[in-house]
Amino acid sequence: MPAHLLSVDSLCRDDVDHLIRIAERMEPIAQRRKVTRVLEGAVLGNLFFEASTRTRISFNAAFCRLGGSVCDTTGFTFSSMAKGESLYDTSRVMGGYVDAIVMRHPEQGSVAEFAEATQVPVINGGDGPGEHPSQALLDVYTITKEFARLGKPLAGAHLLLTGDLKYGRTVHSLIKLLSLYEPLRITLVSPPGLEMPPHLVDLVASRGHRIETRPNLAESFDDVDVIYATRIQRERFTAEMSESFAELTSDFVVDRDFLDRRCSPTTLVMHPLPRDSRPGANDLSTDLNGDPRLAIFRQTDNGIPMRMAIFAHLLQVEDLIEKDLRDVGWFVPPSFGVDDASF
Amino acid sequence: MPAHLLSVDSLCRDDVDHLIRIAERMEPIAQRRKVTRVLEGAVLGNLFFEASTRTRISFNAAFCRLGGSVCDTTGFTFSSMAKGESLYDTSRVMGGYVDAIVMRHPEQGSVAEFAEATQVPVINGGDGPGEHPSQALLDVYTITKEFARLGKPLAGAHLLLTGDLKYGRTVHSLIKLLSLYEPLRITLVSPPGLEMPPHLVDLVASRGHRIETRPNLAESFDDVDVIYATRIQRERFTAEMSESFAELTSDFVVDRDFLDRRCSPTTLVMHPLPRDSRPGANDLSTDLNGDPRLAIFRQTDNGIPMRMAIFAHLLQVEDLIEKDLRDVGWFVPPSFGVDDASF
Amino acid sequence: MPAHLLSVDSLCRDDVDHLIRIAERMEPIAQRRKVTRVLEGAVLGNLFFEASTRTRISFNAAFCRLGGSVCDTTGFTFSSMAKGESLYDTSRVMGGYVDAIVMRHPEQGSVAEFAEATQVPVINGGDGPGEHPSQALLDVYTITKEFARLGKPLAGAHLLLTGDLKYGRTVHSLIKLLSLYEPLRITLVSPPGLEMPPHLVDLVASRGHRIETRPNLAESFDDVDVIYATRIQRERFTAEMSESFAELTSDFVVDRDFLDRRCSPTTLVMHPLPRDSRPGANDLSTDLNGDPRLAIFRQTDNGIPMRMAIFAHLLQVEDLIEKDLRDVGWFVPPSFGVDDASF
Repeated sequence: MPAHLLSVDSLCRDDVDHLIRIAERMEPIAQRRKVTRVLEGAVLGNLFFEASTRTRISFNAAFCRLGGSVCDTTGFTFSSMAKGESLYDTSRVMGGYVDAIVMRHPEQGSVAEFAEATQVPVINGGDGPGEHPSQALLDVYTITKEFARLGKPLAGAHLLLTGDLKYGRTVHSLIKLLSLYEPLRITLVSPPGLEMPPHLVDLVASRGHRIETRPNLAESFDDVDVIYATRIQRERFTAEMSESFAELTSDFVVDRDFLDRRCSPTTLVMHPLPRDSRPGANDLSTDLNGDPRLAIFRQTDNGIPMRMAIFAHLLQVEDLIEKDLRDVGWFVPPSFGVDDASF
Repeated sequence: MPAHLLSVDSLCRDDVDHLIRIAERMEPIAQRRKVTRVLEGAVLGNLFFEASTRTRISFNAAFCRLGGSVCDTTGFTFSSMAKGESLYDTSRVMGGYVDAIVMRHPEQGSVAEFAEATQVPVINGGDGPGEHPSQALLDVYTITKEFARLGKPLAGAHLLLTGDLKYGRTVHSLIKLLSLYEPLRITLVSPPGLEMPPHLVDLVASRGHRIETRPNLAESFDDVDVIYATRIQRERFTAEMSESFAELTSDFVVDRDFLDRRCSPTTLVMHPLPRDSRPGANDLSTDLNGDPRLAIFRQTDNGIPMRMAIFAHLLQVEDLIEKDLRDVGWFVPPSFGVDDASF
Repeated sequence: MPAHLLSVDSLCRDDVDHLIRIAERMEPIAQRRKVTRVLEGAVLGNLFFEASTRTRISFNAAFCRLGGSVCDTTGFTFSSMAKGESLYDTSRVMGGYVDAIVMRHPEQGSVAEFAEATQVPVINGGDGPGEHPSQALLDVYTITKEFARLGKPLAGAHLLLTGDLKYGRTVHSLIKLLSLYEPLRITLVSPPGLEMPPHLVDLVASRGHRIETRPNLAESFDDVDVIYATRIQRERFTAEMSESFAELTSDFVVDRDFLDRRCSPTTLVMHPLPRDSRPGANDLSTDLNGDPRLAIFRQTDNGIPMRMAIFAHLLQVEDLIEKDLRDVGWFVPPSFGVDDASF
């Protein structure tokens, strides 16, 4: 595994399995039953050149739970870069200040460029239309964890990916990671014009998976194990299509009725969030809130142990964790980590 | 006491007394004589959807002094909410990342709505015209602490509330908490149109307190124990009144001359801050700076132990504090915590 | 040494030497070989009223590496000050919340005014055209460290200061500190109109140093030990000069060709950063990247131990550090702290 985490392309199956095993060992800490001090004294530079409060706080909290400290930078500018400083200089300087860097940037490739100049591990926290590897890793971690919980084997599992499959960065990274696994069945459902890029379909097929497309959700999906829904953004539509946005996207809505009528009682629903809850957005329906099949909050919860695993691995402390665990002194709600009535 | 701290309305006298007792036990830490590690590993989400640097830093520092870590968010947007995410989703996600949440938001009721979806304790750090309960608690803590220092009983004390009593969120919360106490005498002085709302006057009277109004400060208040002054905001005036703002508000200025001529040598002056020091603002006068009767900085100092008490109580570590105290190694000014020549 | 660090003017030679000795003892921590917990429980208020991401993170990381916690404030406003709060009130309130304050502010003198009202140590992180003493201290620390590494005595060293010597805050502070040392030879090279102010030239001369000016870099500087280059800002030029900015400033460019042809193989190049890498900026050339003579990143690296030294000294924990050192558990790149192929 490389010294940085820039793209899922650099990960092999063993890397993913290794990170998942570390994430599992992080659960007692992520669930607030144990604390560790293994990264005490270490400093994370959490550099968000583009706002993403949720991702920023998730990385921040994960580093803190390992005992480290965090320097946050948010907003669209890095003051010295506005004065003409190169990414090389900024990167090299930051590497002298901190022990690891998470960077989010609106321009594809900028995080990799940044990583070239620094001596410390860099994690891509999202570079525009490019990559967001920690999201894909937490998605795969969620799938393996949910299958284990339900006592189902992952081999042969049927996954339905729906929504914007053309521009959705998360589904591209997810499908690449899933392609490393035992043969799966993957069904793609998206509005016309927002289909999964052919090279990704070919990649998945070439690795022995069964991959098909369906025009909409108006048929039976009762053998689907996991639905991964993504948001369709109005701005992706042409002006002409945009007028009938609500009409066109209503065929792709995952809601309680769809789950009850078309799927099985154990079909899980995932989504990379945020979901757009505004009227007419036709994103994943809020009528599933509280339903145990809705795994979206278990999914975000899993971001903490997976991001802890990424830090622990890149900073090579994964084998020190168990030596340094102590009990949590403060109150933790008994339901914690077992939310949404799912257990 | 509830699992969240959303409003002073949910607090009974025992709750307030309990928090004050915890705050007293926090003083050695707040005054930098001791450190604790009791919240080590815990993470606070300090979510300020509205800027309030002072309050944000006060909560942040209080959590750090208990040994915890803080993820700050400042400014007017939460990036995922701008994409249509509901308060429910944001709240539920944050609850998976952090162990407690402080939230400030410009809209009344939003913090309570946020608290409904999360599993972790939520503290209202101010929701627009609504509540700011930690401010009221530190005000009551200051009053009890100052009375104890001066050897005076709180029962029968005379408090003068002046300034904008209509829109001042802090005086509304304060008077509610004070109404839980032994019978007091409360005098209200405000410009016409900015009077205390009648339902609060009635509440206080119904609980056996003596409550009166006076038209201005041009009479003797020599038996007043505490003056609680608040800022009158020019924007509260009608256009017509606004022209004579300075003239109208000069009758309500608390300054050294007023204290010397109309009050007693032990009359204390409090203010929720910030005070407007610009010429013509007619806020609490700066000519009292350095005067021991000016308790405003002892009051802000008290924000740290009271906010520590709130965290310690909600996270149920109040009984672990004394087991985990160590001496401070760094330099602390000898005058610390005894400022303003008051001792 | 004073209780605050507001200006280099207040420092004598013994103060500088003392801080350098502490910085040397901080190196094992700054280089991630050791961690300390000596400031555990202490809180820094890192108040940046003006954006300076690099400096903010450097102070933040330095405080964290001593075991403390940091409350950051960035951007151009402090919300309560926008409501008319005086610097006195803000300062006094902050002093009750935190144990030390770093403040950056666009107005000269504002940090000193701020320091008057607070009980805790205040460090000037840059006040507009005024002072930035920690930068000057890390520059002197870099010079002494590099000379020691090269086995050269500092007495009699030849320093070349070039670029904007009129408005460059850092060269003014640096030359004041250098003037406290054994006799040096200092050569000044700047475009017409951007010369070092005469009172600083006189100060340096009056303290026994040999100080000269040269019109440009088109001659031999083969006995120069250190070149300190600074950025020439286009906005400092008159409209007339601005047209020929690139032409006028190209005579002052420090690049590999200049070093190879005019200087010696051990001539070091320093720069306060950021350097403007945009075409036509004529700042310090990027063609020196990777050259061991380029000391600019060793210089920024040195900001951490020097800022740790400043905190340790002002908070009086410098003698506790060695008692509380433990080994770092996480991975540190073997090249760390010996970058740029310089060793």
